[in-house]
Amino acid sequence: MINLLLLISCLCLTGWSAAAQNYIQYVNPLIGTEKMGHTYPGATVPFGAVQLSPDTDTLSYEVGGKYNPAVYNYCAGYQYTDRTIVGFSHTHFSGTGHSDLGDILIMPTTGALQLNPGTADNPASGFRSAFSHQREKAEPNHYSVVLDDHKITAELTTSSRVGMHRYTFPASRQAHIILDLVSGIYNYNSKNVWTYVRVINDTLITGYRQTNGWARNRTVYFAIAFSKPFKNYGYKYVGEKEVYRGFWGQWGRNNTPEMGARQFRAFFDFDTNEGEQIQLKVALSPVSMDGALLNMKTEIPHWNFDHVKQSGQQQWNSELGKVEVETLSEGDKINFYTSFYHTLIGTTIYNDVDGKYRGTDQQIHEAKDFTNYTTFSLWDTYRALHPWYNLIAPKRNSDMVKSMLMHYEQNPMKMLPVWSHYANENWCMIGYHAVPVLADAIVKGNASSFDANAALEASVATARTKGYGGLSYYMSLGYIPEDKNGSSVSKVLEYAFDDWCIAQMAKQLNRQDIYDEFIKRSEYYKNVFDSNTGFMRAKNSDGKFIKEFNEWSPVQRGYIEGNAWNYSLYVPHQPAAMIAMMGGKEKFAAHLDSLFTYELPEKYMHESEDITKDGIIGNYVHGNEPSHHVPYLFNWTTTPWKTQEKIRMIIPRMYQPRTDGLGGNDDCGQMSAWYLFSALGFYPVAPGSLTYSIGSPLVKKAILHLSNGKQFEIEVLKQSAENVYLQRVTLNGKPIVTPELNHNDIMKGGKLIVEMGSRPNKKLFLGK
Amino acid sequence: MINLLLLISCLCLTGWSAAAQNYIQYVNPLIGTEKMGHTYPGATVPFGAVQLSPDTDTLSYEVGGKYNPAVYNYCAGYQYTDRTIVGFSHTHFSGTGHSDLGDILIMPTTGALQLNPGTADNPASGFRSAFSHQREKAEPNHYSVVLDDHKITAELTTSSRVGMHRYTFPASRQAHIILDLVSGIYNYNSKNVWTYVRVINDTLITGYRQTNGWARNRTVYFAIAFSKPFKNYGYKYVGEKEVYRGFWGQWGRNNTPEMGARQFRAFFDFDTNEGEQIQLKVALSPVSMDGALLNMKTEIPHWNFDHVKQSGQQQWNSELGKVEVETLSEGDKINFYTSFYHTLIGTTIYNDVDGKYRGTDQQIHEAKDFTNYTTFSLWDTYRALHPWYNLIAPKRNSDMVKSMLMHYEQNPMKMLPVWSHYANENWCMIGYHAVPVLADAIVKGNASSFDANAALEASVATARTKGYGGLSYYMSLGYIPEDKNGSSVSKVLEYAFDDWCIAQMAKQLNRQDIYDEFIKRSEYYKNVFDSNTGFMRAKNSDGKFIKEFNEWSPVQRGYIEGNAWNYSLYVPHQPAAMIAMMGGKEKFAAHLDSLFTYELPEKYMHESEDITKDGIIGNYVHGNEPSHHVPYLFNWTTTPWKTQEKIRMIIPRMYQPRTDGLGGNDDCGQMSAWYLFSALGFYPVAPGSLTYSIGSPLVKKAILHLSNGKQFEIEVLKQSAENVYLQRVTLNGKPIVTPELNHNDIMKGGKLIVEMGSRPNKKLFLGK
Repeated sequence: MINLLLLISCLCLTGWSAAAQNYIQYVNPLIGTEKMGHTYPGATVPFGAVQLSPDTDTLSYEVGGKYNPAVYNYCAGYQYTDRTIVGFSHTHFSGTGHSDLGDILIMPTTGALQLNPGTADNPASGFRSAFSHQREKAEPNHYSVVLDDHKITAELTTSSRVGMHRYTFPASRQAHIILDLVSGIYNYNSKNVWTYVRVINDTLITGYRQTNGWARNRTVYFAIAFSKPFKNYGYKYVGEKEVYRGFWGQWGRNNTPEMGARQFRAFFDFDTNEGEQIQLKVALSPVSMDGALLNMKTEIPHWNFDHVKQSGQQQWNSELGKVEVETLSEGDKINFYTSFYHTLIGTTIYNDVDGKYRGTDQQIHEAKDFTNYTTFSLWDTYRALHPWYNLIAPKRNSDMVKSMLMHYEQNPMKMLPVWSHYANENWCMIGYHAVPVLADAIVKGNASSFDANAALEASVATARTKGYGGLSYYMSLGYIPEDKNGSSVSKVLEYAFDDWCIAQMAKQLNRQDIYDEFIKRSEYYKNVFDSNTGFMRAKNSDGKFIKEFNEWSPVQRGYIEGNAWNYSLYVPHQPAAMIAMMGGKEKFAAHLDSLFTYELPEKYMHESEDITKDGIIGNYVHGNEPSHHVPYLFNWTTTPWKTQEKIRMIIPRMYQPRTDGLGGNDDCGQMSAWYLFSALGFYPVAPGSLTYSIGSPLVKKAILHLSNGKQFEIEVLKQSAENVYLQRVTLNGKPIVTPELNHNDIMKGGKLIVEMGSRPNKKLFLGK
Repeated sequence: MINLLLLISCLCLTGWSAAAQNYIQYVNPLIGTEKMGHTYPGATVPFGAVQLSPDTDTLSYEVGGKYNPAVYNYCAGYQYTDRTIVGFSHTHFSGTGHSDLGDILIMPTTGALQLNPGTADNPASGFRSAFSHQREKAEPNHYSVVLDDHKITAELTTSSRVGMHRYTFPASRQAHIILDLVSGIYNYNSKNVWTYVRVINDTLITGYRQTNGWARNRTVYFAIAFSKPFKNYGYKYVGEKEVYRGFWGQWGRNNTPEMGARQFRAFFDFDTNEGEQIQLKVALSPVSMDGALLNMKTEIPHWNFDHVKQSGQQQWNSELGKVEVETLSEGDKINFYTSFYHTLIGTTIYNDVDGKYRGTDQQIHEAKDFTNYTTFSLWDTYRALHPWYNLIAPKRNSDMVKSMLMHYEQNPMKMLPVWSHYANENWCMIGYHAVPVLADAIVKGNASSFDANAALEASVATARTKGYGGLSYYMSLGYIPEDKNGSSVSKVLEYAFDDWCIAQMAKQLNRQDIYDEFIKRSEYYKNVFDSNTGFMRAKNSDGKFIKEFNEWSPVQRGYIEGNAWNYSLYVPHQPAAMIAMMGGKEKFAAHLDSLFTYELPEKYMHESEDITKDGIIGNYVHGNEPSHHVPYLFNWTTTPWKTQEKIRMIIPRMYQPRTDGLGGNDDCGQMSAWYLFSALGFYPVAPGSLTYSIGSPLVKKAILHLSNGKQFEIEVLKQSAENVYLQRVTLNGKPIVTPELNHNDIMKGGKLIVEMGSRPNKKLFLGK
């Protein structure tokens, strides 16, 4: 095994151009499918609207009226340790910490028709099947598994909007395809509002599924083509009396070409010969059943599964090839390209091939001159994922901003998205972090798809929405009284950063009035700093800090998804000012040191589902986002080398090429984007600025093929696992004397040479 | 009062042209609103997509899981004997015997906000209000009532797709408009699937209501404009826990511009001065919220209530003016024009102003070159309503046929509509009676909107649908075994007639093969005739008549909505052959005589909700459709004068200008169309032929202003209540010697002169 790895490794080293053809070999979609990564192993193309993946369980969000904690494991529908598969559904979030989707579950079966999924303990009690990882394979845009109970080999691939299934059956007079419209991820017992199927002929059906889940008002339309005519079909209601009521007696439950109910499962029967393949094309649309048919007809007009697979894999190679890296180990390369892969499935295309899409006004719109995207987990992704897009996929990022501006125009609150998916705002988490995405795009000159002034206007309107998250207090008092509106510290800190981003846009667009208003607001973080404790702390309406305070507890009032330690360092736009406020560089560096070394008591590690042991180093919580910039803060002290040390310490602990290798939810690619930047040696501490903060590269070499045709090369000399400290850095031959890299310098093309060593160069980056 | 009536009567006699301007004075929308007429008193325009009418109660279809018989009184939402009004909703069937709709109920209130309707016994317990008929007025396209509990005068008017409300308030700091999205007609406890409201600004909202009722899958989109900004708004869930779930905590229940749930009621608050008027425009669309906005903007771009009212009333005068009549009494004239009115609201427009509509495939289509119609109660309306349209509104009828062909193309069963409304087939009753509508249009040369060959093809395909209503048996055996498929006699008889219609189309279109197939099927009625009893009777699979047989019982197996007496005469296409089969003219005439004189035992009068005392004469059931051609059957015996006698006996008993004046459900205008034809003196016994059967006119004079520009005049000499017998009939001066009138002769224009007398001319119509 080692020899083989070495061989592959050698091939990589010797032939850049040859190796460039096959990046997907370094992607393992199974990474993160165990424990808390919440990734899915199935097939998809870059930003694909269809994410066709096996579900090992789909649990109800509530059991007996109470939250079901087990559901959290199934945010992406799949847990690697499970031993049964329920079926293959077509929509999955990648890495989220709350969930939805899991639409249109398909399961091929043989034997007596079963229309309930059965239990994991006893898969024979239903249509689900046992499976083994020995007979499972996951690669970009291709997933295959043997369904042991049914003796069926299942293969999945996709185009952007169409999932393709290839099922190899045994000989059977009782072969079935189950279409389960009940199943879903985070089923709110159940979240279905209505489901509908129309049988057009014996190889084509259309329908839709309408849900009231995390997205309150979501409809997924579909069309399914079968490569072989079904001989019989029917359906069964689930959990309720017949609701497709009326004078229906003329028709039976079977072979009646219209089915509708809140909850039902349909079946389609076949006779199969040994080894006979039945294929399905399942097209989705946010618009209509006709839209789904159009998507199918346009994207996959044939039945050539292998062609679809290869076409998608070519897309993957093309996308992943934008950054060529040379690494110390095969594992690092797998981590890099799997991370890269995960960044490209976090947000997804949300319009039909003709440009039509459903807006947050629940109306049909047409995306002219841009691609509409959805799934904006912005509290996570504004930090590094969108900056990553700005670097390697600027047109896409610009289109995403345009999509956010359309959201702003269409949604009834007239706010930019907070956490939105599938034409719905779900209001998850806090802040208005579309703003830094807009600012980052504008500041980086990447506003090709949208009107920058309209973006500024939308940002300002959003930031002045009095009804939202304590903003009325924030605007009038400069802080949010915790007794009026909770998580007040987190909100004030994040609002202040977002406001700084608005000021940056205003500056660029010569709007001094707006600049003045928001640059002032950007300093409100000072209003929650308690110099006595050295932490950002919650105040009440009386202007005094609240009495109760536990700096370690993740459920301490004032903070959300983090404790006082994690949140108090959140002033990414003004680290220097923050450090001064906190007592100066020396004191601050010591404070930071202790963060990484503190032994967090066990009891605090399980108080929140988002913070687990795996994602914690000392009291540094890499598994959740508020800390992502923290290791880079040493760059503002007199010990930038500690940033280098921490980065190289964090990477191998938090990113491992294993199914359980992710230290926390991948969060639509934010965790992966942190890895990619950090592995290349720099990180966007403050999106909305041109400046990256320099860390310590993990790669030996990297070439960024930029969209403007330029190339930016990173060469790392004397790279090794021990040589984590930067000795010398030059950009196009000129030494870099501060730990900063300018975005525009990268975009111009050029070469960064970094020389590493096993001991810190403590004088580096001190400005000389 | 008598003087005034005489005066009006005189005006009518003296000035045709002057009187022609105001037909609406003879329309009383309250006729039929008491007992079983099932008409509604509210405002609408001819074929209007909005039927804006007060609901006095909206009951659940089921109570405790069982059918609630009281709901039957509320098929149109209003019962004249009720003393409270729940609100004003925008969709109502006219005269149906099953129901749905009642969408978007609006109620203006004053005082403390109440978000439940309260009870009829104690209206103060909710938002409903007591009212009095003294302060209520109903006329075409205008309804007004004083809501006593709230001291509000409510007025309603409409354009085709927009309802307009004018509420005159007292001075109040607590004035409200309730938007009740829970309320509905025939609520299936509850039929709501989902409801949604979006507040665009303080004078405009949009939304939709999606239901699973009689129509299984129906969505009504709406837009509501308020003439005055509301100061506050909010909503309350009904009958379930909060379902608009998710991270919604940022926003409150009030003044949050998005509301969604299966069931909720919203409110909008105002301050009002004494006498202040607040107006609402409520636009509907079958397509989208944008569609509703477009309809509103196009049809009523202003706030001039009176202009909308007048415009609609002009439409009414224009439509009603197509037939000018002179009658013996004011009451007859009211009956005539109210019947005419009721025929013009049975089917309704179902597309937006831009032609878009929702098809039975639940997809959006565009009606090009035709208007799309819905609400086809075909088991009722093929008999006389569509022939009436063919006579006085041929383009509309042709468009209706086109709409049925689109239904055929779009619906998954590939069948012509049976009973369809709002993009849904509800499969009510039996037969495929779109076929006679198509045939009637084609035979009468009225196929301007559609392809006659396509109509034939759709008819044939429908008539060959094996899965439908025993058709497979019918096709293979020539009858339907009652033990295999119920109501077999009714089905066989009606299929046979429909098949004859297909043969007529085929003949006209030179399709001999189809003609042969279906003319053969058209005689299958003979296969269920039992010469022993003289009735059409059910057979079992063994080919023998079923043993149990009660000729009077309306629940006798073999028949639907009728007994053996009613159904056994149903061979409208071959009365002569039927009469011969039944023993010849003499015996048959005696049989018919006994039908009208038999004293039906009381116990049979209440066995079915559709057959009530009011609608029965002897054993002749005028209150339901299978008998509608029966009084005309004397024309095929040697005593045609008995037809004349019966018609003039039936009319005053079954049609009275009173709120309880209708002898049965108006059935979307079929009962009214029977009246109109019969009052003019002829009736389409067999739609699909050019022949009308002559009865006894009620009018003194009539002028039909035909759409081809011709005029057909009917002059009745010596007309009186006693002179019910025809003495002499001439068409354009030539004597008519058989009791028949040809449709083409009417369409050519001309004059029919009928001379009446108090004793029958027994030689008339015997062919000489």
